[in-house]
Amino acid sequence: MNTNRDVWIREVGTRDGLQSIQTQFSTANKLEWIRLEALAGVPEIEVGSFVPPKLLPQMADTAEVVEGSLMVKGLRVSVLVPNLRGAQSGMASGAHQLNFPLSVSEAHSQANLRKPVSAAIDDFARVIAHRRENPEYAHVRIAAGLATAFGCTISGQVPLADVLRAAGQVIALGVDEIAVADTVGYGNPAQCRTIFREILAMAGDIPVAGHFHDTRGLGLANVDAALEVGVRRFDSSLGGLGGCPYAPGASGNVVTDDLVFMLEAMGLRTGVNLDRLLEAREFMVRHLNDEPTFGAIVNAGVPKGFETAEHAV
Amino acid sequence: MNTNRDVWIREVGTRDGLQSIQTQFSTANKLEWIRLEALAGVPEIEVGSFVPPKLLPQMADTAEVVEGSLMVKGLRVSVLVPNLRGAQSGMASGAHQLNFPLSVSEAHSQANLRKPVSAAIDDFARVIAHRRENPEYAHVRIAAGLATAFGCTISGQVPLADVLRAAGQVIALGVDEIAVADTVGYGNPAQCRTIFREILAMAGDIPVAGHFHDTRGLGLANVDAALEVGVRRFDSSLGGLGGCPYAPGASGNVVTDDLVFMLEAMGLRTGVNLDRLLEAREFMVRHLNDEPTFGAIVNAGVPKGFETAEHAV
Repeated sequence: MNTNRDVWIREVGTRDGLQSIQTQFSTANKLEWIRLEALAGVPEIEVGSFVPPKLLPQMADTAEVVEGSLMVKGLRVSVLVPNLRGAQSGMASGAHQLNFPLSVSEAHSQANLRKPVSAAIDDFARVIAHRRENPEYAHVRIAAGLATAFGCTISGQVPLADVLRAAGQVIALGVDEIAVADTVGYGNPAQCRTIFREILAMAGDIPVAGHFHDTRGLGLANVDAALEVGVRRFDSSLGGLGGCPYAPGASGNVVTDDLVFMLEAMGLRTGVNLDRLLEAREFMVRHLNDEPTFGAIVNAGVPKGFETAEHAV
Repeated sequence: MNTNRDVWIREVGTRDGLQSIQTQFSTANKLEWIRLEALAGVPEIEVGSFVPPKLLPQMADTAEVVEGSLMVKGLRVSVLVPNLRGAQSGMASGAHQLNFPLSVSEAHSQANLRKPVSAAIDDFARVIAHRRENPEYAHVRIAAGLATAFGCTISGQVPLADVLRAAGQVIALGVDEIAVADTVGYGNPAQCRTIFREILAMAGDIPVAGHFHDTRGLGLANVDAALEVGVRRFDSSLGGLGGCPYAPGASGNVVTDDLVFMLEAMGLRTGVNLDRLLEAREFMVRHLNDEPTFGAIVNAGVPKGFETAEHAV
């Protein structure tokens, strides 16, 4: 696989997508999807989350999915963990990376997690401490996801100062990556430039990722804006799987297939082979029960004479 | 209506949209659509095209539509004209502006117009001469649309030098506006920045517009890229009407409703009231026979606490 990537793509459809739909994927089908997408060159997949199975039955087999995913050569296997208990399971599972979501909006944190943002930061500190106290987990990367950083369905606007405060706190605690998330699809390109300029300046050598939902059609415009100020890591979902229960017809995460097309067309190497990626998409779609999928390139095809960034070099 | 616009939007659904679908709109329904959209604050509408009715029966009533549109207070009424004959009809109709498309791709020009680019430029010169020779038309604005500027389905890539040569020629002839068109949805944000930087530098005080199709999902990303280098004029289509016969599920032009949302969210004043625009969309959709429409904001609604640029000022 190509190691000279300009942009690092993390597939989150196997977590953010699957947790939002009705269809139950079997463990075997999840693993085949992951295998095909890794084969296409996607370097990292968030394969599941360690949450109580009662809350998200789709994620009940995450430990098995991690185990199977670790067999896929060269793939970085990451999982979402919402608290210390999840992080302990995540570390024990052998996952390479834990993604810990923090709600930046006070109202959202109270409503969803029943705790203030400061308490969620304390939880994150416990996760970092758990790794420190268990040297066998020293190699596990711990990322923080700053959720609702672009706005919140309860409080509306989220002050930039709150986003930067949370970023500063996870940096001080020793985070390995910061993902800034437009959880509800409120973000716009101007806002992206502002937020990411500030976060990148604070983060120094710590990688910063963008996580966008296409709820209001601005997903790829937001990616381009973030790219322009220097972001080189993005979350996305194959076929835009996920949608939004409150917005019929609205896509979920940025569509991985369209994202790869856009980046490669712009001359940025992703290491992903678009044809193979569309084969992975086909496999995924075959196992969905009438769940909507999204994306333009799957219908339109690439432009005549299109060259991937790799070939153009 | 607000005259302090930061960005000028031209609705082209009544031309580019209607000419691409099966549904026939009556003259009365076209005029009601135009009236409602102008009422929402859209400053310019391309209400039709002066082409042979045999080729495009949908456009056979363009003279009447122009006549009716001229009654709408404050609206700039523009029409597409493909040649001198169309331009003569356009000037006689009383339209405020003629949009003359030129194919920048030699292969596309030969295939569609059966003439080389240089002959199309000669046609454009004749249109300019006709205005000069008829002082009663001195006030009519003449715009050139550089079609296939981002690529062509026949030849693939279109050299930047060809785009700039055509731009230079229409500028020398006295064009009043240049629209740079991604006719087949091949463009990407990096390409936008390159092309528009060059054209804006050549154009000086002559307004430059971007015309994007969302065929590969990059329409709004391309708008943002063009905005960033200084473009302040865009074509778009209400509900993305138009589609592409070769790309099932692919949107036509950039969706006017989503474009207005993006711009206003970024703090750029369009002068357009989004609620009223969605009422115009509703009217349009009611009169379509199962034609697909597109757009995210119509489903998702605006973010909580969303303020238009006008109010935020």
